[in-house]
Amino acid sequence: MSVPRRSGRRPGDPDTRSTILDAARELFARNGVDKTSVRAIAADAGVDPALVHHYFGTKNALFLAAVQIPIDPATILEPLASTPVEELGPALVRGILGVWDGESQPALIALIKANLSAPDAGLLRTFVAEIVLGHLRPRVDEPAGSAASRTVLAASQIVGLLIMRYVVRLEPLASASRDDLAATVGVTLQRYLTGDLPTLPQP
Amino acid sequence: MSVPRRSGRRPGDPDTRSTILDAARELFARNGVDKTSVRAIAADAGVDPALVHHYFGTKNALFLAAVQIPIDPATILEPLASTPVEELGPALVRGILGVWDGESQPALIALIKANLSAPDAGLLRTFVAEIVLGHLRPRVDEPAGSAASRTVLAASQIVGLLIMRYVVRLEPLASASRDDLAATVGVTLQRYLTGDLPTLPQP
Repeated sequence: MSVPRRSGRRPGDPDTRSTILDAARELFARNGVDKTSVRAIAADAGVDPALVHHYFGTKNALFLAAVQIPIDPATILEPLASTPVEELGPALVRGILGVWDGESQPALIALIKANLSAPDAGLLRTFVAEIVLGHLRPRVDEPAGSAASRTVLAASQIVGLLIMRYVVRLEPLASASRDDLAATVGVTLQRYLTGDLPTLPQP
Repeated sequence: MSVPRRSGRRPGDPDTRSTILDAARELFARNGVDKTSVRAIAADAGVDPALVHHYFGTKNALFLAAVQIPIDPATILEPLASTPVEELGPALVRGILGVWDGESQPALIALIKANLSAPDAGLLRTFVAEIVLGHLRPRVDEPAGSAASRTVLAASQIVGLLIMRYVVRLEPLASASRDDLAATVGVTLQRYLTGDLPTLPQP
């Protein structure tokens, strides 16, 4: 395995890993995770696909490495799979803030700043749309076809909450307890995810 | 008027204006607009206060120049003064998106990106807290003491909406009409500004 194909890059070459990551970032940002194959990334980087798997494991793991996220979003999203859909709003606030209030906070703040200020937000868009909202969409598609609107509205409130609490650090939000925010902001998320919204397609 | 004081900077010196702006940014970010005097900024920049007024007019105008905002927020906020408080939610969405959908959009996107990625978000915090929320706070302090919580929650939804629509550009939010968003997100803002919130001090 791991025979470099075109450009003479070798498995042991310290630049190979970052060449693969650069190619992955570009393709994921442009085409999304679903429509990007490990084969295409390998071709773009001039290496054998087996080498990509050797360095990064699965395509999803490669995407998380490309985004440089310090935690796997699955650690937040998978426990929510057992949360009843009518309690998702507060549970999302609690789960997300639980991670952001923890030891990964500096890395997460750096990540959100870097991705928001990038010239093209394609990688961030792919991350939010496919990784974060992809978990939620199948559960909140009521009436059918409403899931995209519902989840993107929820994402707008979550992103704004994270920015005001951790980046802008405006009080009293910066010091508010997770329980208080789960109660207050959870209602907003719950309405977006399962409530009556005036603009949704009617069943 | 306009006699340079300490460092020999002169009114005609092209660097004087940017020296004043640098001093203004630092003091506004650290102490806010209210607690920063033109005199203090002038002293920090090593110029006469009259020269600051000569270049920038009022302290508020100097702050807007320091933030590099391409429009005066008063053009959005002043018309809202005649909006009944129970209709503020949708009106805010309509007013803010009306400006962001207009010709200032590229400058506003650049501004939000630059301010979010700055090492210290002090200037952005001052801008949101004193300029944007300062207009709203006196109108939504019911029960007394609740205005700070109410307005910062509203700000979290507004900031998230702007980022998802204009920076991340996630659909269907990026192409949604202002009317649809005023209806959907307006309810959230209205609840934050005037609704029953579980965590507010009781009257």
